[in-house]
Amino acid sequence: MIYLDNAASTRVHPDVAESMVPYMAEQYGNPSSIHRHGRLARKAVERARRQVALLIGADPSEILLTSGGTESNNTALLGAASGGRVITTSIEHDAVLEPCRRLARDGLDVVYLVPDRLGMIHPKDLEKSITDETRLVSVMFGNNEVGTIQPIADLARICRSHGVLFHTDAVQVAGKVPINVGDLKVDMLSLSSHKLYGPKGAGALYVRGGVKLNPVILGGGQESGMRSGTENVAGIVGFGRACEIAQENLNENALHMKNLRDELVRQVLEIPESALNGHPEFRLPNSAHFTFLGVNGEDLIIKLDEHGIAASTGSACSVHTQKASHVLQAMGFSLEQITGSLRMTVGIFNTREEISQAAVVLGRVVTELRAVSPFREKYSF
Amino acid sequence: MIYLDNAASTRVHPDVAESMVPYMAEQYGNPSSIHRHGRLARKAVERARRQVALLIGADPSEILLTSGGTESNNTALLGAASGGRVITTSIEHDAVLEPCRRLARDGLDVVYLVPDRLGMIHPKDLEKSITDETRLVSVMFGNNEVGTIQPIADLARICRSHGVLFHTDAVQVAGKVPINVGDLKVDMLSLSSHKLYGPKGAGALYVRGGVKLNPVILGGGQESGMRSGTENVAGIVGFGRACEIAQENLNENALHMKNLRDELVRQVLEIPESALNGHPEFRLPNSAHFTFLGVNGEDLIIKLDEHGIAASTGSACSVHTQKASHVLQAMGFSLEQITGSLRMTVGIFNTREEISQAAVVLGRVVTELRAVSPFREKYSF
Repeated sequence: MIYLDNAASTRVHPDVAESMVPYMAEQYGNPSSIHRHGRLARKAVERARRQVALLIGADPSEILLTSGGTESNNTALLGAASGGRVITTSIEHDAVLEPCRRLARDGLDVVYLVPDRLGMIHPKDLEKSITDETRLVSVMFGNNEVGTIQPIADLARICRSHGVLFHTDAVQVAGKVPINVGDLKVDMLSLSSHKLYGPKGAGALYVRGGVKLNPVILGGGQESGMRSGTENVAGIVGFGRACEIAQENLNENALHMKNLRDELVRQVLEIPESALNGHPEFRLPNSAHFTFLGVNGEDLIIKLDEHGIAASTGSACSVHTQKASHVLQAMGFSLEQITGSLRMTVGIFNTREEISQAAVVLGRVVTELRAVSPFREKYSF
Repeated sequence: MIYLDNAASTRVHPDVAESMVPYMAEQYGNPSSIHRHGRLARKAVERARRQVALLIGADPSEILLTSGGTESNNTALLGAASGGRVITTSIEHDAVLEPCRRLARDGLDVVYLVPDRLGMIHPKDLEKSITDETRLVSVMFGNNEVGTIQPIADLARICRSHGVLFHTDAVQVAGKVPINVGDLKVDMLSLSSHKLYGPKGAGALYVRGGVKLNPVILGGGQESGMRSGTENVAGIVGFGRACEIAQENLNENALHMKNLRDELVRQVLEIPESALNGHPEFRLPNSAHFTFLGVNGEDLIIKLDEHGIAASTGSACSVHTQKASHVLQAMGFSLEQITGSLRMTVGIFNTREEISQAAVVLGRVVTELRAVSPFREKYSF
């Protein structure tokens, strides 16, 4: 099996899995308990919080531990919006868009910035949209489908100068591109454990000191009252360790992924009538998103899977809605281009051999599918 | 170490921990992905859903998987309340009470039923409180502090006859007392993995077929749109396996815990000026809650911990609020009685030797603390 769907989820790093084991069968205390079992669990959670903080240059007190990226985004949007205008983009993940739809139903004025053809949001468009009533802006750091990276520092600076809170969903970026929340001047930033070789079921929201939120999940008052519920200690420990490993190997891993991705793109673009989507330069180092005209992306996924290659058409989460990619629509793609799209996202465990093999198989499969395509007369292939 | 705080959290069963491992380093797909990695993860989640359903006699389609008991309770309360009156009790966990406080702030009429001295809620009190405007009732199945089990079938029947939704927080009960949601006629029921020897970070809400809720966490539309976010596959697999093990060994485990608990109570009540709190008959098989007059419960916990015994004063979650137990207050206990209270909750891994040893140490520690108690003149000890 060649796994090229690392934007959907990643293999848990062996060292991460190992770090979690003791917190199940031995140190199983509730971190809120005052006895030794509880204190050991608390200590582990706080160590993980420091590891998460270090990855993004935050203070540990600014790290709110959650059940994952979706909950982090919900907490940022539903917790920080307080009337007035909320500005986001039309290419966000549903974990941002759906909370925005709820805010709109609750009477807030939600504005969606539109990207250019390369998936880029332009700071001047944000500047124009900010009104005196604007309280919150949320723009994704790196897009999960096409991989375009936004000018977050520029966008955040505009918000700061207008006294508007700025949130960014960085789940695809963390561990691949250096992040320093102080330099970026963001107020909130979402992280997900399972996108950076940690376990599923853990994540974090960076909340700059002084920013006040309403909690989404209420109860025993864990996480300084911001996220109730017994802490997922083993998951949090794994998340922390994953952040530590990501931090220690960031440049090396980014270079490895970029080299593999560039090689993949080079080989795949030799297929006739193929195109790389998203920004050619400002993009996640591991992400490649293609269009093959005259091919159905879903058929492509299934054929690749038969050959042991895991890829996707876009966001894994969007299979529940079965809708055409809202990201590609916003970027101005035709339905035919959207239909023929394929996402391949490499990871730290991929090898050069896998990439070459995947490119060869992909070329063959595209040719096979085009041979039976109803559109075959229309193109040169 | 003798662990007698199984109401706060339990040791992950070795078979449960083992069941989780493959879903980290090998079968790490996103359950929403359509390739083989995704399908294997999906299959694992759905098998776990059946295991959870089986423990409570539900249909798998009625099981909503969450990040834990707190989120389950939040989803039931915030998701089902739709104006009018909500009836709950003054002895609920904060994961029910805090959502109720939010509902009250949102203008709903929230009514709190008061228990008797033994912690029992009386069906006639519920009957009297139901009005035409009542939409939702939530009464805890087994109390996390004093262990009293409520007459859930009677309470649910009253609600059903008035067309009112009935939710029960069963996190302390599942795996210790047989539960059949069909017989009980409850509409919603909360479960927590880490209270029944599963991992932290997983839980479920039983939602009877046909009951409509508003989701608390929004996004990619997982869990039929009722709980978005990539599924915590390893955690869910562990939770499912824990439910299966609990189901297979329910009677045997309950008897084991009851025998140990009864022996603990017998030995501990030989300590002068000691009392068992909660209902003597209708109580969780593993729970013992004592009062020792003239002793500070917190001092007791610390002393016991020094002797390697893990116990608690009440709910682990309540340490964040540092308030006197709202449960004991509602039951009419004096501040002095509350101060002198201690909870010991046995588990399936405890042995008779541990119980005897704990009782001996407890007797010694109570005597020591009383010798330096400012109240020592007041009592016969």
